[in-house]
Amino acid sequence: MSESGTNSPGGHQASRSPELLLPEWDPAGPRRAQLEAGLRESVRSGRLRPGARLPSSRALGAELGVSRRLVVEAFEQLAAEGYLVAERGSGTRVAPATGRGPSSPESSAVDGGAEPSRSATAGPAVAIDLFPGAPDLSLFPRRAWGRALRRALAELPDARLGYGEFAGAPELREALAEHLGRVRAAAVAPDSILVTAGYQQGLRIFCSLLRGRGGRRVAVEDPGYPVACWSIEAEGLELVPVPVDEDGLDVAALAAADPDAVLVTPAHSLPIGAVLAAERRLALVEWARERGALVLEDDYDAELRYDRRGPAGTLQGLAPDVVVLAGSVSKTLAPALRLAWLCLPAELVSGAVIARASLDGGGPRLDQLALAELIASGAFDRHLRAARAHYREKRAALLEAIAAALPAARVGGIAAGLHVLLELPPGVEEAPVIEHLAAAGIGVQGLADFTRGDPRPPALVIGYGLPSVRELREVVATIAEAAAAARAS
Amino acid sequence: MSESGTNSPGGHQASRSPELLLPEWDPAGPRRAQLEAGLRESVRSGRLRPGARLPSSRALGAELGVSRRLVVEAFEQLAAEGYLVAERGSGTRVAPATGRGPSSPESSAVDGGAEPSRSATAGPAVAIDLFPGAPDLSLFPRRAWGRALRRALAELPDARLGYGEFAGAPELREALAEHLGRVRAAAVAPDSILVTAGYQQGLRIFCSLLRGRGGRRVAVEDPGYPVACWSIEAEGLELVPVPVDEDGLDVAALAAADPDAVLVTPAHSLPIGAVLAAERRLALVEWARERGALVLEDDYDAELRYDRRGPAGTLQGLAPDVVVLAGSVSKTLAPALRLAWLCLPAELVSGAVIARASLDGGGPRLDQLALAELIASGAFDRHLRAARAHYREKRAALLEAIAAALPAARVGGIAAGLHVLLELPPGVEEAPVIEHLAAAGIGVQGLADFTRGDPRPPALVIGYGLPSVRELREVVATIAEAAAAARAS
Repeated sequence: MSESGTNSPGGHQASRSPELLLPEWDPAGPRRAQLEAGLRESVRSGRLRPGARLPSSRALGAELGVSRRLVVEAFEQLAAEGYLVAERGSGTRVAPATGRGPSSPESSAVDGGAEPSRSATAGPAVAIDLFPGAPDLSLFPRRAWGRALRRALAELPDARLGYGEFAGAPELREALAEHLGRVRAAAVAPDSILVTAGYQQGLRIFCSLLRGRGGRRVAVEDPGYPVACWSIEAEGLELVPVPVDEDGLDVAALAAADPDAVLVTPAHSLPIGAVLAAERRLALVEWARERGALVLEDDYDAELRYDRRGPAGTLQGLAPDVVVLAGSVSKTLAPALRLAWLCLPAELVSGAVIARASLDGGGPRLDQLALAELIASGAFDRHLRAARAHYREKRAALLEAIAAALPAARVGGIAAGLHVLLELPPGVEEAPVIEHLAAAGIGVQGLADFTRGDPRPPALVIGYGLPSVRELREVVATIAEAAAAARAS
Repeated sequence: MSESGTNSPGGHQASRSPELLLPEWDPAGPRRAQLEAGLRESVRSGRLRPGARLPSSRALGAELGVSRRLVVEAFEQLAAEGYLVAERGSGTRVAPATGRGPSSPESSAVDGGAEPSRSATAGPAVAIDLFPGAPDLSLFPRRAWGRALRRALAELPDARLGYGEFAGAPELREALAEHLGRVRAAAVAPDSILVTAGYQQGLRIFCSLLRGRGGRRVAVEDPGYPVACWSIEAEGLELVPVPVDEDGLDVAALAAADPDAVLVTPAHSLPIGAVLAAERRLALVEWARERGALVLEDDYDAELRYDRRGPAGTLQGLAPDVVVLAGSVSKTLAPALRLAWLCLPAELVSGAVIARASLDGGGPRLDQLALAELIASGAFDRHLRAARAHYREKRAALLEAIAAALPAARVGGIAAGLHVLLELPPGVEEAPVIEHLAAAGIGVQGLADFTRGDPRPPALVIGYGLPSVRELREVVATIAEAAAAARAS
């Protein structure tokens, strides 16, 4: 389908669905980004009214001459942005006009980004999912978690079944302070920790604290995690994209942009896979202190480092006065636990606690006690060691397959986390390869999906958390096939 | 202390803490309300700066000539409103200026009201707590919950440990639909249910949906639950108090006030204890349909009805097109589970799902599956029967003690829920009795604490969920003592 249709202009389709404002395809840019822009504009402009039903992904894909999967992924992104709503069975609709737009919570993204909206999307799931934020869920330590839950349930006093503990269970705050100090060289006291229901909730709370201080502009890494950008815009703050290279965030460019805060992933950036270089860490801290800016350190992938050196310590350990450290167990245990944390400078704690109380009343207590028990008993460390070994092997198998089938392709990023950045062979664009994979039931995102500023060399972001080694080999073979087809055409 | 100090004016104290704007005591009104108003105004006006430390409750109580407990409860209410922050050990401070005020989430209340802030308040807990929303936590069915959790953990497929299911686990939505249809005569399909992290989160989501429809004014029952009012104001909506009598909400007054929505507790109102009369139910539905207004039905205490008749069915069952039904297990199981729900008209579901996703990513899955299992297995129904028998006995013992010690006092409200409204003997005011009880380590709220409009006859709201029967007898004896002292003075 993608082959036959790639040349059919979006224009002719407008006659059939006048309310869909779709551009002529720009052959240079990725189709998916163009389709998303068209859909977004159609909703913003009111051409697509709240509640309006969209054509099925299959029909729209056929109309536009792109793969059904590409349309599905565009729908998913817009659902995560709050423009569209897709629920199993009932197709995809324009979201009701519940204050849509950057200033409304409804337009925000959610922890995990494409993943959540995907789960709410009509149609069959993709056969092989290369979403970079997805861990291997088969590793979840069910027996250890069950033991920890039973113990928590047996030991929790009646009085603690009531309301309260909005900052999180004291046991968990203590266990996290010890763990983060030991494993991440963080400078954390139990009192400085707020337990959150996932990283995105922590990001929203950080944004509300920043607004409370009069902050308006938040710098983000470019390329970077789009879902975080949506959350920041949903809090009514202005995004300031700052370039990332192989040494991480460009701190000189950051200082020039002069934002009120910056969101940074020093341990392992998505999708570049860079570690923030030592001299830049010092420069970043110095800038934040001079500027009176806040730094939100997303400790993304820090506990999944596969080379001998191990992860660098946290920025927060260097400068607990200006850095807020955010972490979660969504990658190391499971997203469905909804357990994460913020480590805050003392003067921000009480505001953060009030903010969480107003969002969900503090979250269930038993789960927090179970995680505390898992950490305190050492079971969490054992699990992390096993997970690292597992992902290290998967990553090695993936690189081996790439070296054999795509000798001209370059793999970027350090040996860490759950994804690699695969730069395509010279002359091969992202869009046709992504469409080819989509047609084969392989869901993958291109570097362009993470990029806001100047375009980068064509590359694929390959998450290897969910797929098996066999599936990863199949993925690489399909990419090689697509690259060959792209060069031929 | 309360005796010696009741006449000392707040004025003389202003000289010592000039930033505290405290009024001369109005002998007619409750001291606590006057103290709260003064504190609130001091923060709003900026006299008390963000982060400023307040005097200890003991010192301030001594300064003002009121009991320490009264000051502690005033601090708690303002903490729940987001003006103050109190954390164990570090005393009480003015909240940081994180966008305080009606339009900010930080200023919102939290599920359970006084209870949560109480748990975060400095100083020893009250010896006997008569907070009306507190269930007897010793009834929590730990073994059944543990079994349900184990089963959920064993049966949950790996794939469902990921992101998604923002509306709630399908199993729980199905179990709730069946349960609410059978027990509450609700007209609910699984697809119309949104699982929430407590009632207050559901109320916030309802408010955001209302704002999205252009709604601005929300009617509330007066007297009614103050925490709900704070949440509504925190969502930037205008409160429209409407009187409640022994037949529930005055629907004629509601229609005259012409709000965009109304929050109502038809099964058992707090604190009056009224059931909404049949003809008023019909009138309310008719009004809502003609006005195009939304009704939020808080199914408060519906599952705890002790007389033969059993609870009336839900309003929602009468009019699922205009009524949103809200319920939770905070009273029937435990607040710490953070499990509640909204049953919504079809056109509101997708907006509500997006709203919850943006608040906390949908909440942990295992707890939802455990509740589904508890309901589906019949264990929840067995627990409810046992809980009803337990509370019926407690209530009977309380009424017996009141009849013996306070023959002149009248008890209002139906045989349901976790509280009674005790109208004080003629000539006895609320404030001195509340202060007398506070001095004896008994925490209780007066009817005035729930009233916004015209003052009502002096009465105490006695929650009998937490205290033992022995403690309840002690409470009644102390009230009789206080009433005698009040008449004497």
